Order: sequence, then C-alpha cells, then structure tokens
Amino acid sequence: MSKEELPQNKKREQIVEHVLLIGTGAIGILHGYLLEKSGKIKVTAICRSNYDTMKDSGITIKSSSFGSCIWRPHRVMRSIEEASDREYNYAVCAFKCLPDVIPTERVLGEVLTRVKCVVLLQNGVGIERSLQMARPDIPIISGIVWVGVNIRDNILVHEDFEKLYIGIYKNVHGRNNAELVNHFAELMGREQEYVIVKEHIQQSRWHKLLWNATFNTLATLSGLPMRRLMRGVGVLPIAKSIMDEIAATAAAIGIDLPEETISDSLDMTMKYYGDIGDDKSEEDFKPSMLIDYEMNRPMEIECILGEVVRMAGMYRVPVPHIELAYFILKIKQVSLVGAV
Amino acid sequence: MSKEELPQNKKREQIVEHVLLIGTGAIGILHGYLLEKSGKIKVTAICRSNYDTMKDSGITIKSSSFGSCIWRPHRVMRSIEEASDREYNYAVCAFKCLPDVIPTERVLGEVLTRVKCVVLLQNGVGIERSLQMARPDIPIISGIVWVGVNIRDNILVHEDFEKLYIGIYKNVHGRNNAELVNHFAELMGREQEYVIVKEHIQQSRWHKLLWNATFNTLATLSGLPMRRLMRGVGVLPIAKSIMDEIAATAAAIGIDLPEETISDSLDMTMKYYGDIGDDKSEEDFKPSMLIDYEMNRPMEIECILGEVVRMAGMYRVPVPHIELAYFILKIKQVSLVGAV
Repeated sequence: MSKEELPQNKKREQIVEHVLLIGTGAIGILHGYLLEKSGKIKVTAICRSNYDTMKDSGITIKSSSFGSCIWRPHRVMRSIEEASDREYNYAVCAFKCLPDVIPTERVLGEVLTRVKCVVLLQNGVGIERSLQMARPDIPIISGIVWVGVNIRDNILVHEDFEKLYIGIYKNVHGRNNAELVNHFAELMGREQEYVIVKEHIQQSRWHKLLWNATFNTLATLSGLPMRRLMRGVGVLPIAKSIMDEIAATAAAIGIDLPEETISDSLDMTMKYYGDIGDDKSEEDFKPSMLIDYEMNRPMEIECILGEVVRMAGMYRVPVPHIELAYFILKIKQVSLVGAV
Repeated sequence: MSKEELPQNKKREQIVEHVLLIGTGAIGILHGYLLEKSGKIKVTAICRSNYDTMKDSGITIKSSSFGSCIWRPHRVMRSIEEASDREYNYAVCAFKCLPDVIPTERVLGEVLTRVKCVVLLQNGVGIERSLQMARPDIPIISGIVWVGVNIRDNILVHEDFEKLYIGIYKNVHGRNNAELVNHFAELMGREQEYVIVKEHIQQSRWHKLLWNATFNTLATLSGLPMRRLMRGVGVLPIAKSIMDEIAATAAAIGIDLPEETISDSLDMTMKYYGDIGDDKSEEDFKPSMLIDYEMNRPMEIECILGEVVRMAGMYRVPVPHIELAYFILKIKQVSLVGAV
C-alpha cells in the first residue's frame, strides 16, 4: 500500500453517505436508485406492502435515460422505528403528503433526531412549514419532481426524462445551505442534467401546483381520466379559471406565475390528452388524486387545495372555484378518515 | 223536473273538465288527486312503471291536510299517444324537466294540438321558454310546489301542508289569463289555502331555486344526504356563496331576492337538518338530484344550474361556484345520456 493510496481510500470511505428513503412508490424508488447509482450513497428503504419483494429480489428499473437494471436498496426495513438504528445524512420523503391524516414530522418521529437534512419530494404547497416549525434545526430541501414513472408488475418504467427542481426551504439555519443543496444535486446526478438547483424553489412548487390543483381536482370531481376530461365541453375555461385563482394567490404571497405559464400548461395538457383522433387503445391517464379517490384512500387535498384556500383567505384573494372543490373533496375526505 | 233545475244540471255537466297528467311521481299524484277531489275534473294519467297498479287498484293517499283515501284516476294510459284520443282543458306536467334529454314540447308532442293550457309543476328556471316558443298560442301556467310528499309501498304520504304558487308565464296571449289562473287555482283547492296565485310567478320560481340549486348541488357533488352534509365544516359559507350568486343573477334579470330570503333559507335548512343531537334513527333526506345521480338517471341540471350560468353569462354576473358545479355535473350527465 503506497503512501498516496491511504488518504484517498480513507476519503472514499468518508464520503459514503446514508439516506433514509420513506415512500417507495415510483417516485421514491427512482430517486433511491439514482442516489445509490452515484456510488456515494447507501439507501435504507422503508417498505411496507412491498417489503418481501424489495428485500429478496429488488425491483426492475427500465429507464430511457438511466438505463435498465435490477435495484435492491442497501437495506430494506419494515418501519421507520426499525430503521432508527443509525444516523442518516438525508431523509428523503417520497410518501403522500397528508397533514390532515398524519403530518410529516409525525411520520418521521424519533428518527428526526438522527437525520442531518430532510428532502421532500412531494407535491403541493406549504408542505415544509409544520416540519420546519417542529424541527427548526434541521434544514429542509424542497424538491419538485416532473417525471413520468410507473410501476407495474414489479417493473418501474421511466419514460419521460424530465426534471427534478430542488432548493432550500428558507435560509434560516445560518449554515452554507447552497453547498448542502449542491451536494445533494450532485449525488442525485446533476451531471445528467436531471437536477436543477433553484434559488427560489417556491416558484417551482407553485408552478407545478397550477397543473396539479387544476387537473387532479377536475378529474377527481368528475370521475374522469384525462382524455375523457379534456373532451368535456367547457373544460378549458374552467381549468383556466382555476389556474387564474392559483396565480392570483401566488402573486399575493410574492410568487410570479406569468400568464404564459398558464397558457403553456393548458396548451400542453390539451396537446397531450385532448386529441380525439389519436385515441387508439391506450389506457387513459388518471391523476393520482382520482386513483386515491377511487380506492377510498385519503387524497392530498390539504397541500393541493386547502393551503391555497387558506393563503387566499389571508390575503383576501377570491378563489371561489378552488373553494368549492376543496369543500366537496374535504367533506368526502372527512367521511373517509374522520375529522382532524 | 222543474224549470229551475234544468239549466243548473246543464251547467254542472258543462264544468266537468279534462286534465292530462304527465308524470305520476309523488307531486303528480298529489295534484291529480286534488284536481279530481274538486269534483269538476276528470284526470287522464300517463303511467308507465306503475300502470297496472294505478289502473287496477289505484294508490293510497295519506295526507295530514287532505285526508286519506284510495285514488284511482278517471283514466290510466300507458302513453301520451294513447291519451291523445280527446281534448284536455289542462296538461299538467309533473315529470322531471330535462331539456338536454328531451324538451317538454317533445314530451307532449301531438297532444299539444288538443290542449287548451299547459301547467308546469316543475323545479328550476327557464323551463317554460322552449315550450312557449314552440307553441306561442298555448298559455302556460307556471307552478312552484313546496310540499313534503313521498311514495313508499304504493302509499303516498303527505306530511307537510305547504304551498303551491301559480301564475301565468308572460301575458302575451291577449286573453284573460288572470281568469285562467284563478280558475285553475279554484279547481286545485284554493279554498283550503293551499294554492296562492302570484302575479310575478318568476320571483317564486327563483326563490325556490335558491334552495334547490344550492343543496341539490352540494349533496350530489359530495354524495351526502342533508344531515351529513349540514355537519360539514364550512357548509354554510359555501351554501351562502352559491345563494349569493343566484340572487345576483336574479337581480340582473329584474328579480329581487332580498338578503333575508337567503338567511332564512340557510337558517331553515340548518334548523331542519343541522341538529346533531336530534339524530335518532331517522333516515337522512336525499335531495332528488342526489337520488338521480346514485341511480345513474339524468339529473335536472340544465334548469337548476345551466340556466343560471347562461343568464349570468348574458349579464356578466360572476357565478364561479355554480359554474364549477355545473361543469362537473354536466360532464357526468353527458357521459350518461350523451351530448345534445
């Protein structure tokens, strides 16, 4: 062993970091895989229904951008308690955000004392607040995922190479958060241009909310998947009205969603789902909220709609469409999961 | 036979009038019964699913105000075509008003040439227009029913003695419409204070719409019957917002629904359905639109919501809550009955 090799080996050992992955649906698995693919990360994945499969054989990943392989996380655990046997550099949250059922800080529980940074890969707005209030000492990386992934028959298919936007949730920790975010971006594969670091991450979050709040809501309330929804007479004016309400609320809290953002989002949706001639026998896409609704599972209505209604109320922005949608979905949710 | 008796007998014979009754649900049967009870009317009732029962044994009526008896209409027919064998003084329409499925003038069809006056006992607004345009020569009596009736096991139970408001739909016929309406009111039993003749009947129609558009919509969209709906957090502000939109639309077309109308309607609804303590084992009331929705039957959304959206659009009154509700219910209706 030469003198030169020793410190390098030592260095290599030092940079192996541990990630706790909570939520092993398509988004969680894709990002757990990307992290381990960096060679610098060991993932401890919390798996419930898929515990045996993930532990024994792992999951096949077929990605147009990241190649194909079988991924088995470094460790597979049944619960967060079980996984609290060590410290983690990151806790990556890719589960549904349901503050009205169980807030994120309660999902994480005791492991929060053993985590250096929490990464939220979840939809909606206002999702960081209660966690940050509960643990002001832990920096939160807020992440918005635009990616087309699906799991079927234990195969994760990643078709559309899109983007992960990440940024720190408020710079209140007095440490070098830029370095923290950049480091995570590199682990996640920034060299592949998948990850974009944003200084004002909330803008990205509200941008994605435009689509989510509008089309999750319309699909769920009408019970229609996207293609059938987009053929409905009057869907564009209604969708635009909802997006206008979101943009007005965002503007009130200082986030600019320009008019083109809305028209682009509507155009893209119509282009993607609105073509009647191009029907074929493809299965029609159901937004996640509609799937949850059909399966009688709690829906992410608080961070998709409730938070908008509350923000709009604070700033006296009228959001009547969202208000009605929220009321209807909330009253269903309460009958499902009970009042909070 | 004295000289004096003869003309009186003749007169008595003359005043037997014929009524064609279309729609033999609870509302149709109650009013058919009241008309025959006058002794001056013979009812020809169109019965489909209940043809055999109505023809053979009639229906038991138990009414707190009009007594109990078995009513069998003078004639029971399977179809309007079959019933077109004679002329009628009145065609009383008590069927669901579904212009997007089949407009009233098409329901009536050829019999319209043998009818002197059409009486509409239906909910919603704008329900007279297309019929009047199709047959400008026939006067239309517009009627709004506030009554608590139910049919179960071939028994019609009439519990709450309330009101029937009637009035002529626009005075464009150049005849004595006041006399026409008064005469019908007397046949219907005005002496019992059940029928109120109104000069401005549209005001009564929009007044009833306040409740119907609001609570049919909220119950149907949420899938909840009234008691469960009224316990929903935030139901009163949402209901008031919808009522405000209806009142603003009414105001634009010259119909005044004062603020007290709205607060009274909300108070009454809360008093009736909102009392958690008074739950007992009573069945929870489902508005008719919710029942139709659950049975996959077409809903009266055009005359309850669509007409408001169109009127509001013409006068540029913002009705965002109603607009969203209409869109959602309409897209379901179209998938049920096809586009019109």
